[in-house]
Amino acid sequence: VQISELSADRAELGGYRHYMQKEIFEQPRALAETLEEALSHGDLNPTIFGDHASNVLSAIDSVTIIACGTSYHAAMVARYWIESVAGIPCNAEVASEYRYRDSVPNPNALIVTISQSGETADTLAALKHAKSLGHVHSLSICNAPESALVRESGLRFLTRAGPEIGVASTKAFTTQLTALLLLALVLGKLRGRISAAQETAHLDALRHLPAMVNQVLLLEPQIELWAERMAFKQHALFLGRGLHYPIAMEGALKLKEISYIHAEAYPAGELKHGPLALVDSDMPVVAIAPNDALLEKLKSNLQEVRARGGELYVLADQDSQMQAQEDVHLIKLPEHAGLLSPILHTVPLQLLAYHAALQKGTDVDKPRNLAKSVTVE
Amino acid sequence: VQISELSADRAELGGYRHYMQKEIFEQPRALAETLEEALSHGDLNPTIFGDHASNVLSAIDSVTIIACGTSYHAAMVARYWIESVAGIPCNAEVASEYRYRDSVPNPNALIVTISQSGETADTLAALKHAKSLGHVHSLSICNAPESALVRESGLRFLTRAGPEIGVASTKAFTTQLTALLLLALVLGKLRGRISAAQETAHLDALRHLPAMVNQVLLLEPQIELWAERMAFKQHALFLGRGLHYPIAMEGALKLKEISYIHAEAYPAGELKHGPLALVDSDMPVVAIAPNDALLEKLKSNLQEVRARGGELYVLADQDSQMQAQEDVHLIKLPEHAGLLSPILHTVPLQLLAYHAALQKGTDVDKPRNLAKSVTVE
Repeated sequence: VQISELSADRAELGGYRHYMQKEIFEQPRALAETLEEALSHGDLNPTIFGDHASNVLSAIDSVTIIACGTSYHAAMVARYWIESVAGIPCNAEVASEYRYRDSVPNPNALIVTISQSGETADTLAALKHAKSLGHVHSLSICNAPESALVRESGLRFLTRAGPEIGVASTKAFTTQLTALLLLALVLGKLRGRISAAQETAHLDALRHLPAMVNQVLLLEPQIELWAERMAFKQHALFLGRGLHYPIAMEGALKLKEISYIHAEAYPAGELKHGPLALVDSDMPVVAIAPNDALLEKLKSNLQEVRARGGELYVLADQDSQMQAQEDVHLIKLPEHAGLLSPILHTVPLQLLAYHAALQKGTDVDKPRNLAKSVTVE
Repeated sequence: VQISELSADRAELGGYRHYMQKEIFEQPRALAETLEEALSHGDLNPTIFGDHASNVLSAIDSVTIIACGTSYHAAMVARYWIESVAGIPCNAEVASEYRYRDSVPNPNALIVTISQSGETADTLAALKHAKSLGHVHSLSICNAPESALVRESGLRFLTRAGPEIGVASTKAFTTQLTALLLLALVLGKLRGRISAAQETAHLDALRHLPAMVNQVLLLEPQIELWAERMAFKQHALFLGRGLHYPIAMEGALKLKEISYIHAEAYPAGELKHGPLALVDSDMPVVAIAPNDALLEKLKSNLQEVRARGGELYVLADQDSQMQAQEDVHLIKLPEHAGLLSPILHTVPLQLLAYHAALQKGTDVDKPRNLAKSVTVE
């Protein structure tokens, strides 16, 4: 019986060693399928969130996004997108905290919940808690159509990542991000903040997203070299700023989950307020350095790390104007992708965690102590 | 010359080995002095924040608190207090993030900045940025009366911690917390959410705060035993929920700053979403477990840690109904202190970091790579 199960598994793995690796490489397809309906309209159409979405999304005056774990990192990216693109105040909340704290309800807020399975106990309870406080507008972003979270929500966006078997979430995360960017763009359009030309440009960029992710996946051999250097370290620090701070958090979480390296993320500007004390040659520092308005600030944070003997691993863009040096390992993604950049910068961090785990020989798809869906508190 | 400097230092240290230790033990006095004016009125009086505070604090409809490092942890505690006690929506923002992101200004918001020195570059720039967006109501909480931040703010509360020499902030933090609790209480009173009897009870509790901190300081010998066990570990995880999650963050930051142990904090409900993979016998887990509504939830999180071989260090209250066991080290503070609990639970974490650093022989008052005030970006 064991043998036949293994064969079935192998067939399903289609040449990949692990589900996680397969799921990382499925992202271009998962993103294309998740975007399919949205791109079929030819415009940014509110109905992708439900038949009555246009009314609801026009009426709300703030957004609260509630999630756990990896989905919470998607929520944090969305906060930046929604405030910037749509000009609507947005908060990201950890579900297990939100459900038990005294918060101040706003009946005009949209409550967005995010969960791959749609069965995450804390997220579901948080949505029910929000409703009990008088919240009436809800949207869930979910990878499971029949799930409890979808049933409890007025609006919904179903990501089409397909089944995710690896415990460490990969394609569910990037498809969640895509759904949330669509939400920010639709909210922005409904508020008259996006011109017709901008709308076309956003849709074009989204159309190219799967191909851009494919390009990033080609970096795997370079990432493997990083993983070989980092796999037997005890610690790592992940730095980002702005939209890419939550991506640093997600990169650190992946490394924790499957390689058991104690990786921690910080917004780079906080480095001098404490974590710099940890930096020495045993603490690799991974920095997400896209070519955006924050690059010069980040470079100065990275100088601090170098000056203290830290070894830097920098993910930059083709146009980032950075050079590899003896203590600065550099991988360049394609040209800076603007709002899509957090999605692209996620992929090498997934591969880094995967290859570090391979080096260490951990059980990649079923890391110790963790379950795929946290359906109990 | 060196000898005379040392003598002067020793005199100033008044029998303590380090400024940090002295400053930890000065907290009862620092808190009493910080509370002096507030308690002299016999009621919760808005004027403690400035002559025109009553008008401003009555008019605002939300609060945004901006800070860096330790002061940001105070902001996070305050968020819970302000939403719970005053029923006003509140956000805590990292200054280096807030100043560079597109946020949605609300002219009716109160912008609160917190900085021990009042010269923290990012915090000062964030306040100027908020003003440039049209924010008109500002309050700074600061330990330096003549500082730039105080000059830039309409309202101010001066903590009276006295000079803080140790790089790792201790008494500045607990006095900031006290100022922020006063703010939550005054806002709650102005909104008619605090009865006369409750007002008296709050003032009585604040009056007893210095004595309660003195009681907690008596736990030093027990904390030293913890420090001996933890000092040569590479990692630590700090867990808390609700009001005590930011205190877990502060405890982890202290340990990072002066003992160079890689300590990281999590809201306990997030444990199963990733960090539990790190837990084994090499990863001590420090839990803040006051006798509040979240205790039963926290206990179940702690069972997860024990089941995975983690060694637990639990800070509880006298009335917490927890027992020490072979793999559960327990220190009990006095009875649960309600809203003041985060302030009391900070003190043993400061002592833990201090004694771990002593064990390791680091330069406690001047940890590597860090400066006292971060006056550059």
